[in-house]
Amino acid sequence: MVNSRAASAHAADPGTVRPGGRTARVRASVLRAAGDALVEHGFHSLDLADVARRAEVGKTTVYRRWGTTTGVIADLLADMTERSVPRTDSGSLGEDLGAHARLVVATLTDPRQGPLLKAVIAAATCDERTAQALHRFYATRIGEWAPCVEGAVARGELPAGTDAREVIRAVSAPLYWRALTGGDPLDEAAADRAAAAAESAARAGAYTV
Amino acid sequence: MVNSRAASAHAADPGTVRPGGRTARVRASVLRAAGDALVEHGFHSLDLADVARRAEVGKTTVYRRWGTTTGVIADLLADMTERSVPRTDSGSLGEDLGAHARLVVATLTDPRQGPLLKAVIAAATCDERTAQALHRFYATRIGEWAPCVEGAVARGELPAGTDAREVIRAVSAPLYWRALTGGDPLDEAAADRAAAAAESAARAGAYTV
Repeated sequence: MVNSRAASAHAADPGTVRPGGRTARVRASVLRAAGDALVEHGFHSLDLADVARRAEVGKTTVYRRWGTTTGVIADLLADMTERSVPRTDSGSLGEDLGAHARLVVATLTDPRQGPLLKAVIAAATCDERTAQALHRFYATRIGEWAPCVEGAVARGELPAGTDAREVIRAVSAPLYWRALTGGDPLDEAAADRAAAAAESAARAGAYTV
Repeated sequence: MVNSRAASAHAADPGTVRPGGRTARVRASVLRAAGDALVEHGFHSLDLADVARRAEVGKTTVYRRWGTTTGVIADLLADMTERSVPRTDSGSLGEDLGAHARLVVATLTDPRQGPLLKAVIAAATCDERTAQALHRFYATRIGEWAPCVEGAVARGELPAGTDAREVIRAVSAPLYWRALTGGDPLDEAAADRAAAAAESAARAGAYTV
């Protein structure tokens, strides 16, 4: 079943619906403000005082709790990681990988999620804690989709010993690479090609361990 | 023929051997200094005054000529793009794609080239001119390797109409994705898997246009 909320939930906006007390509300406001700033100006220009102003939270609170811009981004990634993403489960490997690929394209071309993901990837190159948070974020997302490959192995569609996570990563990687290095269209055709390539390689046993 | 210089030339150090007058020497020093600073501290902390100091070039010259940190990085990418990279041409698609994959892994795990490439990818997310320079850099590198796929099409190893550049990109993408999202080893096994997967998918016709 393809879920229409999936595209936005792949890297869900922080601070949308977040029950809790004052601390949770402050965190939600700050992470939402940091996301807004990253989407508008990129990681390069992120400034904690600006985040505090946008969040309508005291600057001292922001500096005390998050310390640095990469500290806020690591927490933003932790928040994004916690949000569960409904995945497709059509019972057909080709359809499931295609749905994953189209979700990645929808996310990367979304006017908010696309710039946000690029910004957190950039931030992860500059700070070890952010890099670990980024790794956990993608490990979680990849793990959510792995069962569609495990199902295909169980049905005998793919060779035994296929590394499910590696197949899912193989779908995402060329799409992210296209988004980061630019110049080529990131559209449904690119999604279908990424899914078809990963499926062919998986059937040929390229991802067995 | 595998060329042993290839690993370092994939993203050659700027300012190593650069004939020319004073302007060329200043450029070489500044680009080398910017590369050093990016490798040491990442894109986040790049500072033009520090680059000028390291390059032993007047701060005013650096600000006047490059203007911003992303301006220096865009020029660094232009310099990297100009450096020709000898590629493998073994006459076997599998061997050529394997050589490309191992070159990408060697570059990404090189203590200088790895951090430098991550830094320029990060910078490209923040500035349009840098993004265009990054696109040209990879378009050039990919173009240099495309003939080994075109050769395989000509020999009948791959279906007619195979998009050669897309096959080369399919080899690099999962390796870059691993480098950027971290946590999984970037080794010869990863290189061989990336090459084998791209080759299987190409043989199955996943990259025909």
